[in-house]
Order: sequence, then C-alpha cells, then structure tokens
Amino acid sequence: MQSQGQVRSANLAAALACLRDGGPRSRARLAADTGLTKATVSSLVAELVERGLVAEGAVHRPGSVGRPGTLVELDGRGVCGIGVEVNVDYLAVLALDLGGAVRWESRLALDVPGLRPVEVLARASAMVAEARAGGAAGAVGITVAVPGGVQGSVVRTAPNLPGWVGTDVAAGLADLGLPVTVGNDADLSALAEVSAGPHAGVPDLVYLTGEVGVGGGVVTGGQLLRGSTGLGGEVGHLALTPGDAPCGCGRRGCWETVVGLGALLRAAADPDDPLRDPGRDLEDRLADLLARARDGDARTLEALTGIGTGLGVGAAVLVALFDPAVVVLGGYFAVVGEFLLDPLRTALAQRVDAADRVALSTLGFTAAVRGGAHVALQPVFTDPTTVPLEASA
Amino acid sequence: MQSQGQVRSANLAAALACLRDGGPRSRARLAADTGLTKATVSSLVAELVERGLVAEGAVHRPGSVGRPGTLVELDGRGVCGIGVEVNVDYLAVLALDLGGAVRWESRLALDVPGLRPVEVLARASAMVAEARAGGAAGAVGITVAVPGGVQGSVVRTAPNLPGWVGTDVAAGLADLGLPVTVGNDADLSALAEVSAGPHAGVPDLVYLTGEVGVGGGVVTGGQLLRGSTGLGGEVGHLALTPGDAPCGCGRRGCWETVVGLGALLRAAADPDDPLRDPGRDLEDRLADLLARARDGDARTLEALTGIGTGLGVGAAVLVALFDPAVVVLGGYFAVVGEFLLDPLRTALAQRVDAADRVALSTLGFTAAVRGGAHVALQPVFTDPTTVPLEASA
Repeated sequence: MQSQGQVRSANLAAALACLRDGGPRSRARLAADTGLTKATVSSLVAELVERGLVAEGAVHRPGSVGRPGTLVELDGRGVCGIGVEVNVDYLAVLALDLGGAVRWESRLALDVPGLRPVEVLARASAMVAEARAGGAAGAVGITVAVPGGVQGSVVRTAPNLPGWVGTDVAAGLADLGLPVTVGNDADLSALAEVSAGPHAGVPDLVYLTGEVGVGGGVVTGGQLLRGSTGLGGEVGHLALTPGDAPCGCGRRGCWETVVGLGALLRAAADPDDPLRDPGRDLEDRLADLLARARDGDARTLEALTGIGTGLGVGAAVLVALFDPAVVVLGGYFAVVGEFLLDPLRTALAQRVDAADRVALSTLGFTAAVRGGAHVALQPVFTDPTTVPLEASA
Repeated sequence: MQSQGQVRSANLAAALACLRDGGPRSRARLAADTGLTKATVSSLVAELVERGLVAEGAVHRPGSVGRPGTLVELDGRGVCGIGVEVNVDYLAVLALDLGGAVRWESRLALDVPGLRPVEVLARASAMVAEARAGGAAGAVGITVAVPGGVQGSVVRTAPNLPGWVGTDVAAGLADLGLPVTVGNDADLSALAEVSAGPHAGVPDLVYLTGEVGVGGGVVTGGQLLRGSTGLGGEVGHLALTPGDAPCGCGRRGCWETVVGLGALLRAAADPDDPLRDPGRDLEDRLADLLARARDGDARTLEALTGIGTGLGVGAAVLVALFDPAVVVLGGYFAVVGEFLLDPLRTALAQRVDAADRVALSTLGFTAAVRGGAHVALQPVFTDPTTVPLEASA
C-alpha cells in the first residue's frame, strides 16, 4: 500500500507533468486534467511554487462566463540538469532548466586520447563548476555522454577511446557533489531528439551520429533500447555494408570504416591536405569541405556521394529491424547532409519502402549534451520533492 | 479521476496478477502483497470466484501459530485463449486456459498458397469451432499468427504468402463471434518464450524461427518491438550474410536464402531426394534428415554446418543491435539444433562476445500458437470483469 507521502509525491509529479506537457493552465483546469480535487490541486501548486518549480502566471479570462483564474505554469528557472560530453576531440557542457531552456553551453577542443581519463574528467569538472557559477544555478544532477558502451557509470567498450575502458566516470566527477549518471553519446542524442524539437514524442526513432566513430541510439515503443547488458543499439562496428577495410576495433569491414569521418576525409583529400590535419578544429575542416562541395569540386562530391550511399545501405538494415518513424542523422552527417540525402535515399529506396524516413538533426554537435541534461532533470519530474523547499529562495 | 468501477477492476486485476505470478496464497497474504485491506481482498476473491477465475484450494497451516487459512489460487479452467497459426504448409490451433495449461491442440497439413485466403480462414474457423466444442470451453478471444507483417488485422507483407497481402484476417473469422487479433508468427513466438518456460520474464530476447521463411521476434525492455508501422524485427529479408542467391521476395542475398529451410534441403539433398518432396510432411522430412546426420552422412553434416555458420554470422548483427540475454532458435532450427549450435557459436564468437547467449526453443512448432493464446488471454488479466459472472456456471 502506498504511504501518504508516496501518494503526495505521485500527485506532485502528475501536476508537474501536466504543466510540462500541456502548458500553463488554471488550477481548475489542472484539477480536471489530473482527476484530483481542486483543494488538493491548490495544495500541490502551493508546494510546487515553494520548491521553485511552478509560478503564477497571467490571469486567464475564459470568455464571458466564469471567474477569471490565475494561470500556473512550469517555472524551471531555479532548477537545471547538466549534460557533459566526453568525445574523442572535445569536451562539452550544456545546462537545461526545467522548462527546456538552455542556461549554459560551453565546449573545449581537447585531444582526449592523449590525456589520462582522470585528467580529462578534472577538466570536465572544472567546466561544470564554471557552468554552475554562471547560468546553471540549481543543478540537480549531471549525465555524462561517452562514445562507447557503459554499465552503471563504468565505460565497458570504447573503440575510439580504448584507454577509457574500465573508467568509473561518476567517480571522476564526485568532487562536484551531484548525482552523476553516464550514458552512450548516441543513446543520449536519441533521447534529445524525442524530448524536444521536430521529433518530440516520436516513439520509434533511430539516431545516427557521425564523428570519428559512428554511433547509434534507438528509441522503440517510447523507450530507449538498452539491451540486456546496456550495450544495445551499437551500429558502428557491424558489417552493414560490403567492405573489408581494417577498423580501429581490430576487425575489418565495420560500418564506420565506410561512413565514418575518417572514410570521408580520406576519400575527399590527400594526406597533406589541411582537411586532414587533426590539429585543426573539426567544425572548421567540415566548413572547408562543405565550401568545396558547394563549389562543385568533383572529388569532394564523389566522396560525399559514397558516404550517402553507404549510409543508405546500412540504414536499410536498421529500418527493417527497428521500423522507426524517422532515422535522424547527427554529428558530421547533419553538417554535410545536403550532399548525403539524395544518394542515401536512393540506396534506401532500393532496399526498403522508407526513403522518406530520413531527417537531418537540427541539434548539431549538442545533441548528446542536451540528451544528458534531459536525463539529469528526470528525477525532478519523477519526484518533485527531490528539489528542496529552499530552491525558490 | 478513476471511478469506483475502475478502481474495483484495477484491484481485481492486481489480485489476479498476484495469484498468477506468485502462486496460491491465503487471503491475508494476498492483502499484504497487494496493499489492500483484508475486507477488500475477501470481496475481490468472492467476485473472482464468481467469474470462475479463482478457486478455494488447500487449507494452509502456517506452522504452529496463527489460524489455518484456506488458500486461494488461480482457476483458469473456465476461460481460455485461442491461438491460431496460418503458415505456408499448415494450420494450427492451440488453446491455453488462464493457468497456462494446454486445453486443446490441433494441426492440419495444408497447401496454403494453393487456396484462397477466404478458404483457408474457413478451415481455420472450423478448427476453432472444433476446439471450442472440445476442450477449449470459455474462449475469450483468438489471436492469429501469420508469417508476415500486419497492421491492425490486415496482412501488409508476406513474402512467402504473397496472396495474403491485403487480407483482413479478423474479418475471415468473424463468424466465431470472438475478438480476433492478428500478429506476426515470430513476434508471437517471442512472446510465448517470455511468457512461460526457461526464458519466462526475460526482458531482452530475440526469437528466430526457421521454416520456409526465416522470421524474427524481438522483445526489448520487456516489450515486443513493433516499430512505427508494426513491421519491426523482420530479419529474413536482410542481407545479414554474404551471398547473392535470388529470394522469393524479388531481391538477392536475403538471409533466408542462406539459412532458410530451402537452403538446407538444397544443400543436403538432390532434387529427386524424398527430403525435397514438398508433398511429404515437414516433420517427417526433418526426422529423416536428422537420422542421416546422426548416422554421420557427410553431405548432411556439411549442409547443417553451413546453416549454423550462416545463423551465427547473422545473429552477431542481431546481438550487437538488440543485446538480448538470449537468442532462441525455433522452428526447424530447434529440430536440428544439435548440429547447428557448434558452428553457430563459433561464428558468433568471432564477431561478438556472446557465444553463450544461444538456446534452442523447447516449444517446437507450437511457439506461435502458444504466444497467440497468451495474447488472447491478456484482456482477462487487464480487466477481469470482461469475463461474465456466469462463466463459473
């Protein structure tokens, strides 16, 4: 049997979810929508206001009949979730408040494989501290995205960051004094896509991220696909396309040897081309490549067509297995997407009846940190009493 | 707000689920387990007895202290769910009562592609009527398994039964006057595997069925993977293994051209061999093939090794994507499984760290009808008031 306290926190959660999903509304409307009495709703709203999660808003005048009522609305400014991304060549931090607004964003180019994990996590910790001192006040938790598979908070597989296998990421950020969870970067990006924006609420979505590696995140039936050991949804090291090139993971023919960033740069440029200078910022190099493609450079266009075709061949397998409403392309795929979509759709249409189910992510390289920030906020929606009453002060 | 009636039926469902999952128990124990008062539990039990869903059982004497109490237990004999399977070369019917006992089972060898769907469904309807007149009294619903993809009750894809595309299967069984749902055969088999037996309750499982076609059913995070159009989890027509053989679906290199029954029989026997006589019952032909393998016939063993290797190569992709706790092999794969497992595990181990995650189904060719019968029973567990009070008469 539920205790009174459990009933209370479940009702607080229901009221908060109603305001999040349905927008501002009167107490009377909130009572009707949640099936609770008006007296209960008034008490719940008062507590949510005290916890800094809800605010009184505009006065609502419903036509000519009925008394005007004050609207209540989600007020997440006092609370935020922090997403951190550790990737091969950068660290990123992004904080979202409860209403989904970005309160802080920072990014640091870093040669992660050249440093020990403990050093990288110390940098990440400093970035989070800076965020909290800046716009990200009221942090309730941190979720860290890593380019690999995790179990609990420990990295278990990381083909492009092999030195991180066995690292307890939460332990490395313990000095921050906040709850820390850890997830796969593509999984968190997939959650970001279904949490807000054009694909908000889509129950079946596949997210593919192109970076040094190629990652996949799968949402099916409204749930993130995790699998029995937490390593499900990994696409980069499958032989989804014909090919025999050696992969960093030790096998041959992995999909990321065909469609990863390295494959694109090798096809598009000679070794001494500035495009292939790992010391340059990736976004600058991609901007140069895009400029060449827009100028009609034949070699660049051919390289991009090859990537698009390889994406389509592999995506056909994913579409047949997961039957997503949409395959969202993120990371570098989105940056150069205008040149990938046609060959991708052609290859897809030859294999499955789903050529229209492809879209470019609008989140750029922030998808994983956004997803992390959403996940870090979840405990507040599950149990609003986790936010102290003082938070409104 | 929930009405009194909704609360009542939810409490009935909770009590019934408790008895199903936890076994016979006293009313006092049931009250403790559900968090309801003893008075409420007594009233619920009385109603469940009236609906024929629960019975008074043995007297329970808890050690030397406490009063002896009568145990109550699930008594599903009055209600059953019926599973029907339409496959390429047979029809099957199986009825399960609420306690999971088989109340009826029948099977009819039939050249399904040679008949119109309406004729096949008339035969199936007659088989269900026979079942209801026999052991399957108190039928609450029917779930039909088909070897293809369905949307609602209409077949949308059926590579091995192309004449069925567009068929509304429920309409063809409307004369029975029962609710009819329709599902993919491998999906329903996967549900059967997680509903009872050695994999009961496993949240992440992949079921592969080898018949004329090769089907896949995926359970992930405790839910059947359906996808955005209901066609998810299809594996037979993916190019999961190298190969270029023409497939019945019109494409080349599909997995079922490598590991389907046709591939095995072609590799194991010449065209005039009785093994390849489609007029003979499949189980007889498989028994002959198995006998040859056990006698050490080189060609038969080589053919089976080829199937096992092909299964392992493809299963590696499925394991990487779905990360199941177990891949269950059903249909003909289970019949000849003793000769498939070694090459399968070898191929799997070369690709993923999961060679121990393979098991043979113990359900034989009844997996799909069992899964269908489970699905047909679900409404009773969701809302026990769907069973009329007269059912106990």
